[in-house]
Amino acid sequence: MTQDIISKVKTASKALIALASVSGAAKDEALRAMASALDANREKIISANDRDIEAAEKLVKEGKLSSSLLKRLKVTDIKINGMIAGINDVVKFEDPVGKTLAGLELDYGLELYQVSCPIGLIGVIFESHAIENTTGLPKGAFALMETREEVNEILKLDEYISLIIPRGSNEFVKYIQDNTRIPVLGHADGICHVYVDSAAAHTKAIDVCYDSKVQYSAVCNAMETMLVHRDIAGEFLPEIGRKYNDAGVELRCCDRSYEILKKMGFLKAVLRATEEDWRTEYNDLILSIKIVDSIDEAIDHINKYGSHHTDAIVTENKGNATKFINFVDSSSVMWNASTRFADGFRYGKGAEVGISTNKIHARGPVGMEGLLIYKYVLLGSGNKVADYAGENPKPFTHKKLNISLADRMEGAK
Amino acid sequence: MTQDIISKVKTASKALIALASVSGAAKDEALRAMASALDANREKIISANDRDIEAAEKLVKEGKLSSSLLKRLKVTDIKINGMIAGINDVVKFEDPVGKTLAGLELDYGLELYQVSCPIGLIGVIFESHAIENTTGLPKGAFALMETREEVNEILKLDEYISLIIPRGSNEFVKYIQDNTRIPVLGHADGICHVYVDSAAAHTKAIDVCYDSKVQYSAVCNAMETMLVHRDIAGEFLPEIGRKYNDAGVELRCCDRSYEILKKMGFLKAVLRATEEDWRTEYNDLILSIKIVDSIDEAIDHINKYGSHHTDAIVTENKGNATKFINFVDSSSVMWNASTRFADGFRYGKGAEVGISTNKIHARGPVGMEGLLIYKYVLLGSGNKVADYAGENPKPFTHKKLNISLADRMEGAK
Repeated sequence: MTQDIISKVKTASKALIALASVSGAAKDEALRAMASALDANREKIISANDRDIEAAEKLVKEGKLSSSLLKRLKVTDIKINGMIAGINDVVKFEDPVGKTLAGLELDYGLELYQVSCPIGLIGVIFESHAIENTTGLPKGAFALMETREEVNEILKLDEYISLIIPRGSNEFVKYIQDNTRIPVLGHADGICHVYVDSAAAHTKAIDVCYDSKVQYSAVCNAMETMLVHRDIAGEFLPEIGRKYNDAGVELRCCDRSYEILKKMGFLKAVLRATEEDWRTEYNDLILSIKIVDSIDEAIDHINKYGSHHTDAIVTENKGNATKFINFVDSSSVMWNASTRFADGFRYGKGAEVGISTNKIHARGPVGMEGLLIYKYVLLGSGNKVADYAGENPKPFTHKKLNISLADRMEGAK
Repeated sequence: MTQDIISKVKTASKALIALASVSGAAKDEALRAMASALDANREKIISANDRDIEAAEKLVKEGKLSSSLLKRLKVTDIKINGMIAGINDVVKFEDPVGKTLAGLELDYGLELYQVSCPIGLIGVIFESHAIENTTGLPKGAFALMETREEVNEILKLDEYISLIIPRGSNEFVKYIQDNTRIPVLGHADGICHVYVDSAAAHTKAIDVCYDSKVQYSAVCNAMETMLVHRDIAGEFLPEIGRKYNDAGVELRCCDRSYEILKKMGFLKAVLRATEEDWRTEYNDLILSIKIVDSIDEAIDHINKYGSHHTDAIVTENKGNATKFINFVDSSSVMWNASTRFADGFRYGKGAEVGISTNKIHARGPVGMEGLLIYKYVLLGSGNKVADYAGENPKPFTHKKLNISLADRMEGAK
């Protein structure tokens, strides 16, 4: 079997050379075919998903699967619409391959171009997957691996695979990261915060905090910890607490917030938070709450306990907003907006590849640009470094060029 | 000791927050101080290096150190000039931190900015190092680790360190890559090729092939394998062979090139190549030579045996050049220019961070841009995702903004 996987991956890696020369129009056609296939097979997909959900529900009951994974598994008509819209958005984008990103004359007759190109063979690994056949592209360009053994084999093939994109639970992503030398694009944790500043506008604070937690709690960009300035806590916490109570949110509170919320007899689930809560991604209708004495304490808490994913401040004080934006070390920082906006589609990227908490290559919501890199192309006329080195070196001109490599090649020699 | 290292790294990681707010002018001043210190201490540095070289020569004699590492260790006045020029070049660049890379209106009153920021704490590890004190920057921002045990401890600190940049031999870089979860920016191998096409201009072919091998053979961007089209081999090989012979280059030849070169009695070092030679980075005055039947064979050879670093074609045929540029999967591709040009300073980047054969983040010669990433900043007015989701979602406008975040914050609210 191992041999079979290696040969599949080798085939895909060779098909890439053909794929690199496929025109933008052909790629668009393949994308449109995928969107049509999704649309034409709605019922099939949803009924297959129904069976998956049924099986998964059993596993949840047996404690073998988390309920948040179950939620993510559910495919609805609206979700399929979203997939189709995402694909069509990608079609609308210009082909990003082969663009000249920069041009520099090193010397007369010696020109350097930086040109975009695909990263290469990418391993996308879904924890709960449903992969379709693709048409119109070189055979073997996509390889489907289904078992855990096959996935483990793939993780060893760093000679052929340039990037791994895992989609699934934290444990799954961590497993992938710990078991491969191949770069992994993805995020393991989404511990997002909203900080309600002393200068917060009341309605904005309520809207942002409610939406960040309740709009969809099973996902990585939902808030897990709410930080509230002490000066506003007495007024703000009872009202947001009532709303969370109505939505069935369990509240895990620091001592000070516990005192305020516990007084409201009708709140069902008010518990005391432990140190562990500040480090926990619930992915569920659970929220930890902490009252802080200052914006600095909020920033320190976020940088210490957060996952550098997405964090928001609610304030009318521009200085505080600027401070929060500069000092919170996260891929997305929101001022008076819900953390749930951190998403490739909402950020205008079309289909989302993932949200990265890596600090290299691609960070935050990632679209097609995360699948691209560049190469340098140097056009000369027999130039030798010897002329530009030693005791009497020729100087470089380093003059910016405003022509694309494609146009330059068109006119060349 | 372990605790000591962790606390040093934690201190550095906290100092970063202060460092992020240091002005461009202060950073320039610190750089100028480094350049002056290098200039003022030339004699000290060179005499200290003389002692290092003496000790290293002993190790080379005992077979404990490679002669190529010895060459890299040598510091000369010209090398110090290069360091100073590199630093001054960086001063000339605008501060790259805090630049608005893109702006997008998601909806009226909901604006997304992509802003450049430093990656974070970077571990730069030199195999043979000589590190100076730095002035004018937050204390503890730089931490010096000297022993191998200390380096091993650092490789475990992926919670604090965002990127490792190793500088040294292949074995050293590979060791680092194999022993850390932290992303590594660097290259392990530099197996560079020059392909002399049937349509090559004779003088250009001689100049490019001679410079790529002989100008400085101890470095990663020097040619290790020369591929020659069969139609031109009979004419080209004897002449370049004579020049290589005069320069003391050992030639390891495929059967066909062996026949041609062996006939020239005066060539001292003409050997037969083995399969291993095509995968070997000599970093020395040794060159493997292969005659190929077509440009396609050359491209296949390069993609199979090369290290995706830098490869060159010498040809007057534009179609062949285009094919080579598109299909050779390397970070730098040269047309009629020496592979030795692949270098951060020559590419106009000022001081070079390294040459990357990674296919994510930064590829090829890397300057300051390789030390930067971005964050997304979303400015709203209490916006909730709930309004943009569900059955009757508000549409996003996704309109390009042409204002910087700094200007936007200046005018905000």
